[in-house]
Amino acid sequence: MAVGLKAPTKLHPVRGVRLAAMHSGIKNDPAIRDLTLLEIASGSSLAAVFTQSHFSAAPVQLCRKHLAAESMSRYLLINSGNANAGTGAAGLRDASECCDALAAKTGVSREQVLPFSTGVIAEPLPVKPIVTAVPELLDRLDADNWLAAVEGIMTTDTLPKAVSVQLEIEGQTVSITGMAKGSGMIKPNMATMLAFVATDAAIEAETLQQMLASMVKSSFNSITVDGDTSTNDSCVLIATGAAEVRVDQNQHSFCQAMRQVFDKLAQAIIRDAEGATKFVEINVEGAASEADARSIAFTIGESPLVKTALFASDPNWGRFIMAIGRAPVSQIDADLVDLYLGPVRLLHQGLPDPEYSEALGQAEMSREEIVVRVNLNLGNAGARIWTSDLSYEYVKINAEYRS
Amino acid sequence: MAVGLKAPTKLHPVRGVRLAAMHSGIKNDPAIRDLTLLEIASGSSLAAVFTQSHFSAAPVQLCRKHLAAESMSRYLLINSGNANAGTGAAGLRDASECCDALAAKTGVSREQVLPFSTGVIAEPLPVKPIVTAVPELLDRLDADNWLAAVEGIMTTDTLPKAVSVQLEIEGQTVSITGMAKGSGMIKPNMATMLAFVATDAAIEAETLQQMLASMVKSSFNSITVDGDTSTNDSCVLIATGAAEVRVDQNQHSFCQAMRQVFDKLAQAIIRDAEGATKFVEINVEGAASEADARSIAFTIGESPLVKTALFASDPNWGRFIMAIGRAPVSQIDADLVDLYLGPVRLLHQGLPDPEYSEALGQAEMSREEIVVRVNLNLGNAGARIWTSDLSYEYVKINAEYRS
Repeated sequence: MAVGLKAPTKLHPVRGVRLAAMHSGIKNDPAIRDLTLLEIASGSSLAAVFTQSHFSAAPVQLCRKHLAAESMSRYLLINSGNANAGTGAAGLRDASECCDALAAKTGVSREQVLPFSTGVIAEPLPVKPIVTAVPELLDRLDADNWLAAVEGIMTTDTLPKAVSVQLEIEGQTVSITGMAKGSGMIKPNMATMLAFVATDAAIEAETLQQMLASMVKSSFNSITVDGDTSTNDSCVLIATGAAEVRVDQNQHSFCQAMRQVFDKLAQAIIRDAEGATKFVEINVEGAASEADARSIAFTIGESPLVKTALFASDPNWGRFIMAIGRAPVSQIDADLVDLYLGPVRLLHQGLPDPEYSEALGQAEMSREEIVVRVNLNLGNAGARIWTSDLSYEYVKINAEYRS
Repeated sequence: MAVGLKAPTKLHPVRGVRLAAMHSGIKNDPAIRDLTLLEIASGSSLAAVFTQSHFSAAPVQLCRKHLAAESMSRYLLINSGNANAGTGAAGLRDASECCDALAAKTGVSREQVLPFSTGVIAEPLPVKPIVTAVPELLDRLDADNWLAAVEGIMTTDTLPKAVSVQLEIEGQTVSITGMAKGSGMIKPNMATMLAFVATDAAIEAETLQQMLASMVKSSFNSITVDGDTSTNDSCVLIATGAAEVRVDQNQHSFCQAMRQVFDKLAQAIIRDAEGATKFVEINVEGAASEADARSIAFTIGESPLVKTALFASDPNWGRFIMAIGRAPVSQIDADLVDLYLGPVRLLHQGLPDPEYSEALGQAEMSREEIVVRVNLNLGNAGARIWTSDLSYEYVKINAEYRS
């Protein structure tokens, strides 16, 4: 039951990127694609960020190692159905073997292949079907295969998630296309997130990494379903330069378009969050620092009592002040806090607004998309996150998947 | 559906403490007690700790002010059915008025009365029924009224929670009796926690405060249902000295008995947690610091994915390593971590134990009381917390109480 989300129907190809996806045999159903390959043209730039988990999965560890070798990445090999996490040294060997197979067939070095996995953890990666599929994957590579590719990275996502924009820069058409997966029910069920975004603009490598960090901070690092960080989270940004337009952070319209792609992908994950019936934006403003604002926003967004109130469409503002009150920040003055649901002010200077009525709050909480706004009236810093509600379905998905 | 918890049938009186409880009219049902009074003999010591919420309720603010006046507290006036939280200056005036009424009838100063409230937030405290009830409450004071008193502080607790022990020290019988409330479904539903423990041992005030801090750390500050801290949490420890035995932190058997009372009260709150079907102890050992150990224990205990696995009796150890992996600590070496369910080792040095089988894990997870043990094998620090699972009933209680 995705909230306000539709499957993409058309995705712009990105010159310099070719894709393929097929069923290799990791998943049981032969109709389901479980292996995706991205080929990146020589001379492109690539930036990546990964999970901060202490238990990062084998492919994440290998990606870090290969990227450290500073040879230009040419292939991304992504499987769904198996996360290759909690698999120790054997998991690293398995992921390496897949990279080696691809390197051998294409003549690139092992370090130029980046592996990604999502799915079941603590089970050995089925290396053989992956290696066997490599020649056919290479045959199928095509710039127009984004829709197939996004299907290949899904686990229990209820819809494929991809966003594509084009814009004119210096008379050239520049494309930005991205895909993501996440929030689906997988065994053993972590909200594993993968995202891949490519553009044919030319972007210098260091600039690209800074751009990715900036984009991720306000998109994928500003969403929460349940506060549970996965072992496999990875996000990759590719710039092929094939459009022959060089851009950097000062190219405003490009950065805006790029931010739109990241934000919509991040939103898509929340719209398709496990059991979600609401899409919720939480804005905290007037904070003493951005760290404080983020901390308060996440405390609200991860509070089970707030999330069940959102599910119930219950304008139970006591739960919001409870969450604000327990946020691990040093500076809050309860007597200054304003709280809004959409345009409706519930609290003014820490007390119920005289104009507020339960009916006004109820109308806002009944919407499928809800905006919560907190003004601490302390300083000029702010933060915005997106989150979902906590429904019976969330408990069902996560408690009953084996039965 | 409390897990392994029964209502107390007998509670030892504590010499120097008299109690009374009655229906005053705050709650609608005249059969339900909603107002409790504790009288403490002159010459007693009292220590208290309160919520760290930025939005502390009016009675909490007033308690802090009265305790700062350093006049010996003689009365605790506790109402259920209304939390007097989110009520601003009017709430402070209301709480003061109740204290004044009691002070006027008893001849003590206003500062010698401590007010406590639990229940609905953001509604004005019904001062009149409380003030009206004061004379009758005073008439009813009796040392043998602990069972009535604990009923008077309940909100939607499914059972009264109280623990009582006696021990011999220097030929004298010393009693320790405590009561707590918490985890019940209240409008607007915070897991408000109140606890009051009294002993007739003589304990010097400063020692008593240190003792309380130590006891609370490993009991009430080591439990979590949903991570949502209330605006009204308060815990009070009283030593009347009537038993004419002076004790301090070096009196081992006394401290052990006191710790037993605190631990059992804290456990009672978890056993009666909203929707709980499991009582779960989480032990983290071998950590570099106690702060790290506590952080990991709470990250596991508050993870929605771990809690739904506990509800489902699913030995889904990937969720445990996910939670350990995302804990906000600097020192974890994934290759050193051991994970146990009861006596069964699931992970050894970060990998599945060769002797482990799903059937062994399943048997442990199916128990009503589960012990999770994590050894980081890094250092000598540890922590232990108690928590509950996340069930449909939790969502139901917190989403549907208005319907």
